[in-house]
Amino acid sequence: MQGACDAPLTRAGAALHNVSMRSYRKELWFNTDSRVALVNITPQVQEALRASGVQEGLVLVNAMHITASVFINDDESGLHQDYRDWLEQLAPHEPVSKYRHNVGEDNADAHMKRQIMGREVVVAVTDGKLDFGPWEQIFYGEFDGGRRKRALVKIIGE
Amino acid sequence: MQGACDAPLTRAGAALHNVSMRSYRKELWFNTDSRVALVNITPQVQEALRASGVQEGLVLVNAMHITASVFINDDESGLHQDYRDWLEQLAPHEPVSKYRHNVGEDNADAHMKRQIMGREVVVAVTDGKLDFGPWEQIFYGEFDGGRRKRALVKIIGE
Amino acid sequence: MQGACDAPLTRAGAALHNVSMRSYRKELWFNTDSRVALVNITPQVQEALRASGVQEGLVLVNAMHITASVFINDDESGLHQDYRDWLEQLAPHEPVSKYRHNVGEDNADAHMKRQIMGREVVVAVTDGKLDFGPWEQIFYGEFDGGRRKRALVKIIGE
Repeated sequence: MQGACDAPLTRAGAALHNVSMRSYRKELWFNTDSRVALVNITPQVQEALRASGVQEGLVLVNAMHITASVFINDDESGLHQDYRDWLEQLAPHEPVSKYRHNVGEDNADAHMKRQIMGREVVVAVTDGKLDFGPWEQIFYGEFDGGRRKRALVKIIGE
Repeated sequence: MQGACDAPLTRAGAALHNVSMRSYRKELWFNTDSRVALVNITPQVQEALRASGVQEGLVLVNAMHITASVFINDDESGLHQDYRDWLEQLAPHEPVSKYRHNVGEDNADAHMKRQIMGREVVVAVTDGKLDFGPWEQIFYGEFDGGRRKRALVKIIGE
Repeated sequence: MQGACDAPLTRAGAALHNVSMRSYRKELWFNTDSRVALVNITPQVQEALRASGVQEGLVLVNAMHITASVFINDDESGLHQDYRDWLEQLAPHEPVSKYRHNVGEDNADAHMKRQIMGREVVVAVTDGKLDFGPWEQIFYGEFDGGRRKRALVKIIGE
């Protein structure tokens, strides 16, 4: 009987070890001086991943505000200036009067810029690391700054 | 012996409780009167989350058709009119003749509007709730309506 | 006693069977002849899903390079030509001199085209299959080709 009881003990232990799903949540806060800003948050996401202990899984990073983005691209200052000019051309801030979203707001353009750049990224976790190509970096894109806003890091895996 | 057998029972129970991965799937159906429509589907996604029983995980919501979007933004009617005008400017429906996707179709512009607004959103689930910032709402964006189309809600977690 | 011991055995077995989280990773490699190319990668993603053995979960497919996209849309050649024309209009390659991202690069436009089309898709897995609507196909969108580049397939589930 002892042996018969030991078997499930071992197998239950294996189940606990192999399949525990972990989840981890962290908010990143921002308060940019300028209306538009692109902030590299890769180090903060890497730190959250380390803290989570997740080895295999997915990381979701999303803006929690609807006039901001989280996106992945290159950390090169010339390109960032190009992005700012291009977004301003596709969705100009001025004249504010042409927009109908003026219910105590002057940020309709920021809602549009955010749709082009995207709300969120999902990144693979492999061997406890962000599974990135050679130049991938995660950015918080602020399009209506000058106040406290947040991004969410949520990690799911084992 | 009874005690020796109780131990694995308890541990197996803990394993079952802690690590069971749940998945849940639901289709949302639409048939909008107009060619373009933005429909707030947050309540339906919240209901799906409740039905799933998932406490920690991820919700994927995606259009199942390629001329429609699922996106997260503000539920404000002036902004929605701004979005419609802006998308029409970036990817005009008329003249249809300028597009090559006219193989029994007149909806090339809808395929483009959908790329700007995005196919899908991934939302964190924390404590059994959509882990949202203050103004985040989920929308189904229809750009070629007047027929039955679907969005998918898929929830993964525990 | 035998019965009391059999119970946990069965329950532990159920735990092992039901909850093992699987993860699977595969890189897809490309080297397109032309600067811009749209490549249907649905068969490769389906093959990765089969190899993973995952029945319920999520598939992430993302470009690992920041001048390329992974997106879901229609496999229709007229539409693809429309996409190419439209992206060239929204983010023209020429004149290269108008961009500031010219630090040994002439591909600022490719970084912009990729933001419109998106870096990644997340697809539901149901009953071991990509949970797709009638016309959904996955594409690798190359906007700065002529060299070896990669997309990542990461599958999480059970």
